[in-house]
Amino acid sequence: MPSLDTYRQLLEDHIESYIQPGEPKGLYDPMNYIMKQGGKRMRPALTLMGAELFGTDCRKALDAALAVEVFHNFSLVHDDIMDEAPLRRGKPTVHHKWDVNTGILSGDALLIKAYQLFEKYEPATMSALVSLFSKTALEVCEGQQYDVEFEDRKVVALEEYLKMIEYKTAVLLGAALQMGAIVAGQNQDNQNALYRYGVLLGTAFQIKDDYLDAFGNPETFGKQVGGDILENKKTFLYIKAQELGSAEDKAALDGWYETTEASDEKVEQVKVLFQNTGAVIATREAIADYTQRAFDQLDTIQTEAARLEELRGFGEYLMNRTV
Amino acid sequence: MPSLDTYRQLLEDHIESYIQPGEPKGLYDPMNYIMKQGGKRMRPALTLMGAELFGTDCRKALDAALAVEVFHNFSLVHDDIMDEAPLRRGKPTVHHKWDVNTGILSGDALLIKAYQLFEKYEPATMSALVSLFSKTALEVCEGQQYDVEFEDRKVVALEEYLKMIEYKTAVLLGAALQMGAIVAGQNQDNQNALYRYGVLLGTAFQIKDDYLDAFGNPETFGKQVGGDILENKKTFLYIKAQELGSAEDKAALDGWYETTEASDEKVEQVKVLFQNTGAVIATREAIADYTQRAFDQLDTIQTEAARLEELRGFGEYLMNRTV
Repeated sequence: MPSLDTYRQLLEDHIESYIQPGEPKGLYDPMNYIMKQGGKRMRPALTLMGAELFGTDCRKALDAALAVEVFHNFSLVHDDIMDEAPLRRGKPTVHHKWDVNTGILSGDALLIKAYQLFEKYEPATMSALVSLFSKTALEVCEGQQYDVEFEDRKVVALEEYLKMIEYKTAVLLGAALQMGAIVAGQNQDNQNALYRYGVLLGTAFQIKDDYLDAFGNPETFGKQVGGDILENKKTFLYIKAQELGSAEDKAALDGWYETTEASDEKVEQVKVLFQNTGAVIATREAIADYTQRAFDQLDTIQTEAARLEELRGFGEYLMNRTV
Repeated sequence: MPSLDTYRQLLEDHIESYIQPGEPKGLYDPMNYIMKQGGKRMRPALTLMGAELFGTDCRKALDAALAVEVFHNFSLVHDDIMDEAPLRRGKPTVHHKWDVNTGILSGDALLIKAYQLFEKYEPATMSALVSLFSKTALEVCEGQQYDVEFEDRKVVALEEYLKMIEYKTAVLLGAALQMGAIVAGQNQDNQNALYRYGVLLGTAFQIKDDYLDAFGNPETFGKQVGGDILENKKTFLYIKAQELGSAEDKAALDGWYETTEASDEKVEQVKVLFQNTGAVIATREAIADYTQRAFDQLDTIQTEAARLEELRGFGEYLMNRTV
C-alpha cells in the first residue's frame, strides 16, 4: 500500500485540478478559498486506504475521497457561522472574509458539489455511495445540533455525549473508509467492519482530543491547553468527573464551571478534580477500549493480512499522537 | 390524466405520511414546520404530470416529486435568512420562530433529505435523478447569488436578468417535469423537450409575475401592487424601460429609483414611465413569446396527443392567471 504521504500528494494534485474559477465569482471564490486552505486531508486519505485495502488502485477512489473532503469543508463553513468563529486554519473564515449570506450559500453549493463527485461512478456504485453519503451527512447535522443544544444544558449524560461525538465526527471517518470498500466492490460484511473500524477509531480519537486539551504537552499542543475548561465545555473528562466524583468534588466542579473567569488557577484546579475523581484514569481506559474495539473489527475483514496490518498501523499512528 | 386537484391531494397525503417527528427535535421540528405550511405544491405536481404524460402511474413519481418539494422548502428557509424575511406564507419564517443557526442547519438537513428520496428508485433511475437534481440545485444557488449581487448594482443587462430568473426559478420547473419523464423511462429527446417546456414556461411565468406586481388587479393580487417599484427592484419592466426609454425617461426613472420613499405617487409615476417607454408592451410580448416557445416544445414530444393537450392546458391555466 502507498504511504500516507503518497495518498496526500495524490489528493492535493486531484484537488488542484478540481478547483476551477466559476461564475458567479461571489459564489465560487469562497468555495475555492476554503478548499485551498488545506488541512491534513485525513478523511479523504481514509477513502483511498479503504480501496487499497482490497487491492484496488486508490486512484479509482479519488472522486469519492474528494466528495468526503468537499463535504467536510461544507460543514466547516456552516459550523463556523454557527460558532461565530473568526478564524479557521489561521485564516479568516468565509463568513468573516465575505459575509454570513455568502457563507450560507457557498456552503450549500459545496454540499451539492460533493454529491456531483459521485456521478463519475457507474449507477450501482453511485447509488451505494450516495445513500451512504446522505445517511452520514444527516447524522453530522444531527451531531452538530446535539452539540449546540448541549452548550445550554447543565447536565449531559455520557451516553448522550458519546452519541454526539459519534455523529458529529466519527461517522464521517467510518463512511470515508466504507466508500473505499464500495469502490473496491466489496461485500456488505467487509464494508460494515471497515465502517465500524472508522467509527470506533474516530470516537477514540475524539475522546483523546478531549484528554489532550487538558493534559497535552503545552510545548507541542497546537491550541491553548485548558481551552475546553475555560469555555466550560462538557467533555468526556468533565462528564466522567461528575459521574465518579464525591458530592464535594461535584460541588467544586460546578463552582468552577459557573464562572467564565479565564485563569490558570481555574485550569489547574479543574485538572486536579479530573485527577482526584478518577476521571483521568476512566478517560484513558475509554480511549484504550475504543481503540481496541476498533482493531478487533479489522480481524473480521477478509483480505490480505499485510494490507490489514498497514491499516492497523495507520490507526496506531493516529492514536499515538501526544500533541 | 388526473386533475390538478387529484395530484395535489396525492401529494398532500404523501407529505403527511412522510413527515414524522425526529430527534433531535431542535433539528426536525423546524423541518416539519416548513413542510407543513403548504403552498400550492405546483412544483411536485409537475413531476407527477411528467410521468402521466407518458402513461406511467404518477404514484411511481411521488418520491421524486416530494424531493422537488423538500428542496424547494430548503431554498425557502435559506433564502429567508438571506433576505431577513420575518414572514412566509403568513407565518413566522424558521429563523424568526427559532434562530438563524437553526435555519441554517435545518435547511442543510432538508437538502440532504431531498437526496434521500431518490433512494427508492433502482440504481440507473436513481443515478439519472440525482444527477439532474444536483445540476439544478447548483443552478438555483447560482441564481440566488446573481439575485443578491444585482441588488447592489445600478445596471443589470436584460440577458443577465433572464439568466438569473432562469436559474433561480425556471430550471426547477423544467427539472421537476423531466424527473417525471425519467421515472417513466423516457428517452433523452423526450426528457429534454419536457425540460425546456418547463424552463420556458417558468421564465414566462416569472416575467408575468414582474408584470402583475405593477399592473395586477389590486382587488385580487395577493401582495401590495407596486411592491417591486417601492423596493427599487430591477425587474423585466424596469430593465426594458431603461433599454427603450428616451434620455429624459431614463433620468426620471433613475430619479425615482434613487429614493426609498414609499409613496403612491412613486408607484403611479413609475408605471406611467413603464407605459410611455414601451416597456409594458415589450413585457407583454416577451410573456407571449416565451409561452409560445414553451408550447412549441410540446409539439416535439412523442406521446399520445390527448395527454399533451392536458399538459398544454396546465400551461394555459398557469399563464392565464391575472392575479
